[in-house]
Amino acid sequence: MTMTTNEQPHVLILGGGFGGLWATRALASAPVRITLVDRTNHHLFQPLLYQVATAGLSAPDIAAPLRHILRGQKNVIVRMDEALAIDLAAREVTLAEGRIGYDYLLVATGAAHAYFGRDEWAEHAPGLKTLDDALAIRARVLSAFEAAEREDDPARREALMNFVVIGGGPTGVELAGTLAEIARHTLPREFRRADVRNARVHLVEAGPRVLATMPPELSEKTRAQLLRLGVEVHTGAPVTQIDAEGVSMGERRIASRTVLWAAGVAASPLGRQLGVVTDRAGRVPVAPDLSLPEHPEVFVVGDLASVQQDGKPVPGVAPAAKQMGAHVAGVIRDRLRGLPGKPFRYRDYGNLATIGRMAAVVDFGRLRFSGILAWWFWLVAHLFFLIGFRNRIIVLVNWGWSYWTYQRHARIIVRGGDPQARSTRAA
Amino acid sequence: MTMTTNEQPHVLILGGGFGGLWATRALASAPVRITLVDRTNHHLFQPLLYQVATAGLSAPDIAAPLRHILRGQKNVIVRMDEALAIDLAAREVTLAEGRIGYDYLLVATGAAHAYFGRDEWAEHAPGLKTLDDALAIRARVLSAFEAAEREDDPARREALMNFVVIGGGPTGVELAGTLAEIARHTLPREFRRADVRNARVHLVEAGPRVLATMPPELSEKTRAQLLRLGVEVHTGAPVTQIDAEGVSMGERRIASRTVLWAAGVAASPLGRQLGVVTDRAGRVPVAPDLSLPEHPEVFVVGDLASVQQDGKPVPGVAPAAKQMGAHVAGVIRDRLRGLPGKPFRYRDYGNLATIGRMAAVVDFGRLRFSGILAWWFWLVAHLFFLIGFRNRIIVLVNWGWSYWTYQRHARIIVRGGDPQARSTRAA
Repeated sequence: MTMTTNEQPHVLILGGGFGGLWATRALASAPVRITLVDRTNHHLFQPLLYQVATAGLSAPDIAAPLRHILRGQKNVIVRMDEALAIDLAAREVTLAEGRIGYDYLLVATGAAHAYFGRDEWAEHAPGLKTLDDALAIRARVLSAFEAAEREDDPARREALMNFVVIGGGPTGVELAGTLAEIARHTLPREFRRADVRNARVHLVEAGPRVLATMPPELSEKTRAQLLRLGVEVHTGAPVTQIDAEGVSMGERRIASRTVLWAAGVAASPLGRQLGVVTDRAGRVPVAPDLSLPEHPEVFVVGDLASVQQDGKPVPGVAPAAKQMGAHVAGVIRDRLRGLPGKPFRYRDYGNLATIGRMAAVVDFGRLRFSGILAWWFWLVAHLFFLIGFRNRIIVLVNWGWSYWTYQRHARIIVRGGDPQARSTRAA
Repeated sequence: MTMTTNEQPHVLILGGGFGGLWATRALASAPVRITLVDRTNHHLFQPLLYQVATAGLSAPDIAAPLRHILRGQKNVIVRMDEALAIDLAAREVTLAEGRIGYDYLLVATGAAHAYFGRDEWAEHAPGLKTLDDALAIRARVLSAFEAAEREDDPARREALMNFVVIGGGPTGVELAGTLAEIARHTLPREFRRADVRNARVHLVEAGPRVLATMPPELSEKTRAQLLRLGVEVHTGAPVTQIDAEGVSMGERRIASRTVLWAAGVAASPLGRQLGVVTDRAGRVPVAPDLSLPEHPEVFVVGDLASVQQDGKPVPGVAPAAKQMGAHVAGVIRDRLRGLPGKPFRYRDYGNLATIGRMAAVVDFGRLRFSGILAWWFWLVAHLFFLIGFRNRIIVLVNWGWSYWTYQRHARIIVRGGDPQARSTRAA
């Protein structure tokens, strides 16, 4: 471990997700001082966030305090704070609680869900990006079943047991599949008045198929597996209206009290402060070494970066963010030795998505498979990449328990910052 | 299992804590229809709530959905709802979402923390009764350490690292002991700027000793164990003021940004609607069979009931609530057979309290012990009484992990409904 001094260059990293954390770790032995800033106190394993939203895992199962992860790395200071503005000329960032200068800046603040200019939909269709989002969705879904059990009017009860997931990407598919499993297998014995087996789960996708980034044959298999789980899949159905009573897709209308948003993301607004023209999703085009063309001391990685490779965009997935973060660490090391930064090259190890109980799809280019084998592969891969030995044990125990009993242990409603969770009770 | 018909008497149980849940279970084979109403969807194992507040356990580890616990008991309907008013003459209860009649009513709505008429203290000194309370306290404590790490001013940093727990009962002792352990052992390696070993934990008690319901010798041992853990114990120190800057005890003042309230409880306000004069803490005096003297069809149990035995009050602890709940079930069964209800008799199996890592006190009347043996006894007893096989495994794994590593896995800040958790950041 290198001792740090004030003369060493200061690397400021904004965001403790996959991009920012992997960059930080890859600079462990570099002669730099690092400050890692995140709005939360934890690194979040986002690929399992839908499990927290659907009560299969507890929030601490898939998150670890950034301080704890980096406790042995002496050249980093972790600061829980929020970046508000970037001053490229002064090489300074305004945080909610102060200002901080930099010699190198890495912007890895990711993306948030976006409503394509219909921000009024946010209230009725919460998205899933943070632990707070997941706890709010959990409270809303469970509260809808509770309200259905209290409800005497059949039409209102039906609306309470209609769940709509908007967006047929990986998150939407996971949410819809798991909700159907809960309604069919987990809850039925526990309700007396509402027949939760009548609950309907709708997956609504504007485009022609689900999992559009996968090969068409895997989209077709995913659709078939979703139907088998009891999910009603609506493709080619762009949403035109969301309100407190339900969802419209043109003339079609689904009455629903519980609408979840998994349709769109927009890059962090910090991207617009970097003096370059961002793309339609707010992402920042970067030079081949992931720096800004006009500001080689500033780098952008992860969901906030727009990187083209072989004529295709590098996807916004966790492995890409990790690779970019580690690459920037290498470029900074090279620069400190007076060498130019190497161009970034994304290595695609394949693509996988889970659908529900024992169902998943895997795409390794030539090797494609689905079903139970794909699900086991998904499970092992996710356990392997989960940070923290303890978390892996706990998650494995919880999954084993859920698998054998169909139970989901985290079916506990806490307010979790969702004002809607309470008002659902009045529905 | 008995089939229920609409002709069977309707037993309405308000509250799914130890009293209400044990009564419900003890009526499983009785020829009655039961409705169990709770504001939340879960039964909470309150004795371990301080572990959620201090990030040792996740919320779902110590809670189980009431529906799930009672899924096999066909004569009960669980309703997530809130009781607002009781109409004794009409035998009807007004809920937030409707009205419901009863033939027998059991009021088991427990107690909430109370500020002795100083409700303005609530904002600055949150109490610990629900999972939402626990998550809010967790966020507040962890955010104070984060703010200290950002703070440059030494006086303000000191105030951020002063923690004050008010109330020297079991909850206050547990909270103070665990906070000291976190500051001394869990966090030090993870902070760079704030020396968290300088954090001070104060336990403030108005009376002459901590754990006042225990024998004086065990109070003395508890005090000694707290001091060894690094807690500063202030007895005979009634609090006269709490504000955003700290706590006053007469002339004495402790500057602190994080004050926790474990000093007083007041019985549920429903007790005042039962047509009898309640005691100073709002508890309802009951007949020997735990019914109301003027309304033999209405029973009160748990923390809401004032029961005298051999000239002493029955304590407000979980075993007493369980025994009362089961007793009321027996009285209802007797009445259905035309027999009079038997008088309630509390069996005191002993008293135990934990202090912190490997420290506890046990009082079995003649047999009293403290230290490591008491701690193991405490641990086994609490695991044994925790509902749900899965929870026991998970809690044991988490405790084992914490014990060997000094880590507390649930150190994740979520908003958890605490508006203060955010503003602490601005402190």
